[in-house]
Amino acid sequence: MALRARALYDFNSENPGEISVQENEIISLHSQQDIDGWLEGSNSKGERGLVPASYVEMIRNDTATSHNNSTSGDAYQGSRYANIPSGGFDASYKPNNQVENFSKAPAPAFPTFSAPAQHQQQQHNYQASQGSDDDWDDDWDDSSTVADEPGVVSGGFRDFEGNGPSTHRISTSSMARGGNAQQAKSSATVSRNLNRFSTFVKSGGEAFVLGEASGFVKDGDKICVTMGQYGPEWQENPYPFACTIDDPTKQTKFKGMKSYIAYKLTPSHTQNQVSRRYKHFDWLYARLVEKFPVISVPHIPEKQATGRFEEDFISKRRKGLIWWMNHMTSHPVLARCDVFQHFLNCTDEKAWKQGKRKAERDEMVGANFFLTISTPAAPLDLQEVESKTDGFKVFTKKMDDSTLQVNATLNEFARKQIAGFKKEYQKVGQSFKSLSQAFEIDQQTYSVGLNQAIAYTGDAYEAIGDYFAEQPRHDVDPVMDLLALYQGHLANYPDIIHVQKGALTKVKESQKHVEEGKMEGPQADSIRERCNIISFATMAEIQHFHHIRVRDFKSQMQHYLREQIGFFQKITGKLEDALQMYDKA
Amino acid sequence: MALRARALYDFNSENPGEISVQENEIISLHSQQDIDGWLEGSNSKGERGLVPASYVEMIRNDTATSHNNSTSGDAYQGSRYANIPSGGFDASYKPNNQVENFSKAPAPAFPTFSAPAQHQQQQHNYQASQGSDDDWDDDWDDSSTVADEPGVVSGGFRDFEGNGPSTHRISTSSMARGGNAQQAKSSATVSRNLNRFSTFVKSGGEAFVLGEASGFVKDGDKICVTMGQYGPEWQENPYPFACTIDDPTKQTKFKGMKSYIAYKLTPSHTQNQVSRRYKHFDWLYARLVEKFPVISVPHIPEKQATGRFEEDFISKRRKGLIWWMNHMTSHPVLARCDVFQHFLNCTDEKAWKQGKRKAERDEMVGANFFLTISTPAAPLDLQEVESKTDGFKVFTKKMDDSTLQVNATLNEFARKQIAGFKKEYQKVGQSFKSLSQAFEIDQQTYSVGLNQAIAYTGDAYEAIGDYFAEQPRHDVDPVMDLLALYQGHLANYPDIIHVQKGALTKVKESQKHVEEGKMEGPQADSIRERCNIISFATMAEIQHFHHIRVRDFKSQMQHYLREQIGFFQKITGKLEDALQMYDKA
Repeated sequence: MALRARALYDFNSENPGEISVQENEIISLHSQQDIDGWLEGSNSKGERGLVPASYVEMIRNDTATSHNNSTSGDAYQGSRYANIPSGGFDASYKPNNQVENFSKAPAPAFPTFSAPAQHQQQQHNYQASQGSDDDWDDDWDDSSTVADEPGVVSGGFRDFEGNGPSTHRISTSSMARGGNAQQAKSSATVSRNLNRFSTFVKSGGEAFVLGEASGFVKDGDKICVTMGQYGPEWQENPYPFACTIDDPTKQTKFKGMKSYIAYKLTPSHTQNQVSRRYKHFDWLYARLVEKFPVISVPHIPEKQATGRFEEDFISKRRKGLIWWMNHMTSHPVLARCDVFQHFLNCTDEKAWKQGKRKAERDEMVGANFFLTISTPAAPLDLQEVESKTDGFKVFTKKMDDSTLQVNATLNEFARKQIAGFKKEYQKVGQSFKSLSQAFEIDQQTYSVGLNQAIAYTGDAYEAIGDYFAEQPRHDVDPVMDLLALYQGHLANYPDIIHVQKGALTKVKESQKHVEEGKMEGPQADSIRERCNIISFATMAEIQHFHHIRVRDFKSQMQHYLREQIGFFQKITGKLEDALQMYDKA
Repeated sequence: MALRARALYDFNSENPGEISVQENEIISLHSQQDIDGWLEGSNSKGERGLVPASYVEMIRNDTATSHNNSTSGDAYQGSRYANIPSGGFDASYKPNNQVENFSKAPAPAFPTFSAPAQHQQQQHNYQASQGSDDDWDDDWDDSSTVADEPGVVSGGFRDFEGNGPSTHRISTSSMARGGNAQQAKSSATVSRNLNRFSTFVKSGGEAFVLGEASGFVKDGDKICVTMGQYGPEWQENPYPFACTIDDPTKQTKFKGMKSYIAYKLTPSHTQNQVSRRYKHFDWLYARLVEKFPVISVPHIPEKQATGRFEEDFISKRRKGLIWWMNHMTSHPVLARCDVFQHFLNCTDEKAWKQGKRKAERDEMVGANFFLTISTPAAPLDLQEVESKTDGFKVFTKKMDDSTLQVNATLNEFARKQIAGFKKEYQKVGQSFKSLSQAFEIDQQTYSVGLNQAIAYTGDAYEAIGDYFAEQPRHDVDPVMDLLALYQGHLANYPDIIHVQKGALTKVKESQKHVEEGKMEGPQADSIRERCNIISFATMAEIQHFHHIRVRDFKSQMQHYLREQIGFFQKITGKLEDALQMYDKA
């Protein structure tokens, strides 16, 4: 029996060797084995070539293995940045992070209930491909999987209160201090959240608060929260650095049949250039999301299935990566973490692969991340933490609404300038030119200067039309890039807030249990202590968010205004030139 | 039998004592006698009061007297200036200049064929009202008649070649030198134009060329054409002056039931203020059109039936009158003519009426105007005159097209600025303000400056939206006023060119007749001499047109550009203020 597959999405071939397929088209496969993420086959037109493995599902007799593949590149086209939910509120968690090359052994459609689910899931996704180092060199820039990001998981601003702890199973037995993978078996004294899709559970927040996280924290892994002028803050990076992203260049491999774009990254602290592809960023992003439960990891620019080699797209993606990099390097925790440093500094291919595997096997992720945090001695007032968290929730909701509004307005403003404004000014220019042409019919010498001046004025207005059309690239676009990045952060915060609120709820429950004699004081105290750690981290992260927000919006609004001023000055200059022409007329 | 009348147009009462009527409504009249141009009667609703006599036609048994009344105020609403054909090309001459208060003896629907038809027509229209000086004080500003203006007569740029001389009646008898009103009886040697509606005939051009004009030319009436650097030109006014038009004020009369707007005119050469109403301008305009066949009399601002007391309308009309006055005072012939000087200088009511009658009885109008012209000794090359006339015709056609285009474009440009541009900038402003409001929810002290700066930026963009909406009044409107005035001139020129071409045709015919022995040499020579006079006048007028055109368009384009520069500088200033706010942020 011939191997057959069904296309899950449209795929347009962009390079020799690829074949185009339409959604639901049946493809005859020549082999079930993918080559670097590509399958060889023939489409319904009989064309023979490669299709991305992630775009198709095998047609087997056993239909149960056909699984939902909803996070392909196409799925992101609506939003400017990857992983920003394209709107639509979805309170029920859909584990749509099952994108895998189906040639690998399929994972269960839902992760089994063992915390940290996210961690395990990620390990599966990335460790499963360890066998073939070629996987790293997968040609399909955007086809690498991004599993379990909060942005995808949470449908924007869902009301996580309504999604909160459900029924509790109360037990008086003491907590089992099991290993990393054994928490699920332990019967916790304080309620466990039975909603296995809760971010609080997934992030490892619950496991940590309940004392189920364990791991050896090296000195280098220690993350300090200090008490600053405005409250808890991440200890500043003593070695701040920046990183430039330049020279996106098209490179080919796979006998020239596959192409990708490589960027040159130059960190300021090493000055060693490294070459990285979008898929590397994507991989790194997944590592960071997995590792840091209450840190808002900036989203990387959106995936795009077609037009990936168009100049505009490359330029836009590069700008997005620069914004991303800027947020990475200015985050005291993210900037210093091993996997990011490895990404920035490693030039040797063998060392790269070793570092990659190490990062994928990192145990200090999720629940264990909280173990690495050291806080000031004086605990936080948890009531104040709750109040601040609530306030921040209101803030993020309002900021999300208004960034959406600014985004829509500026988008329309840019569109109007590119189309309508340009047209109006050019029509004015053309009508002046037609007037000067009429005047030229009269050969009076005293009219010549005027005719020329009016013609020049016509040209000036046509140029001004062009200025209007060009301007949004210089001012509106950067603001929209900024907004997109912040929309990513704002999409992260519901989950972060959820973790914080979950921890606070656990403290309240434990207090109640102590009052009811169901729990011993020391146990409740340790829950409170761990909640204090989460609170320090959350407060520090919120503080960091406000700091970079003020910094970014200040500098971006200044940039926008400077550009606008320059723009109107350019127009004024053009008109002044035109006016001067009349002195001679 | 009750006196009845039918409303020819809708009339909306604007003042106590007036009644509203709808087109075709039947009005019962209390008397056939009008009072100051108003009739007392009852409308179909039984309301009793005054309606403008010019808005109704009497219903008589003799229906023949009901005549076509197509030049009421309403008819002009499409165009910005009075008497500018509202588009549409009409090659057949329609004598739609029969507007009269029907209480006067109705004129024949078509003027009898006696040259100069225009002159006689005008005399009828205005001299018929001599019996009642009250007519001068007619309340209905806009209801006074404007007869026989070329602009109304010619449907824009009609192809007057196609409308030229038709069949010719040839006779060898010598020309009868009859009086002003007797030419029709004379049998001309050279063909008479049987198209009695031809501008050449109506203007008196034909009569003059054929030697049928006669009159006593006083020294003061002499109009000199000189040979200047660029060809024939009107002798400059040795006493140039300007005249301001200020303080439009509402005045009432007729026991307070009628209102009108009076303007203060102050000529620079006398510094004596006179008070004039629109109807006075209208009367003067009619005198000038009648008197000067090849001079382009600037059109007065359009009539308007309703909203005459609204501030915007008054301001717009005043600006139109200022433009008109500017063109009057800068025309060497028009500026100096008696009727204009009377209009500018007379303050005494009795002297005014005397001067008014004198002007209406002026014999040196139409054909006789050419008698007043003295030219340089050396005659013009008529072939060159013809070529220049043809060139000018092409020029005016092209200029008419492009002024229409500029007008339409600027009109749309203004509309867009007032609506769309304003809206876009204000939406940007509002979205920035909403962002600052979101930011204000965060009480971080380090965010306060930024919040204020963004709010200020929002206000700045809202203000810029207003700037856009206000701007057209300052730059587009004056250009459109200029274009309207020139569209009036351009509507005049077909008739002027027609007179010139008619005269040239007569010369050619006479040459042919001489060759064929049908005319004697001296007679042909005198025709050529008179054509030379017309040619000098036409060439001087064309020269004048080009001079004021260059002057006006230069200064208006400069004004437009200065305003635009100021506008964009104002925007820049506002944005610079906003930018400064971020220094403190």
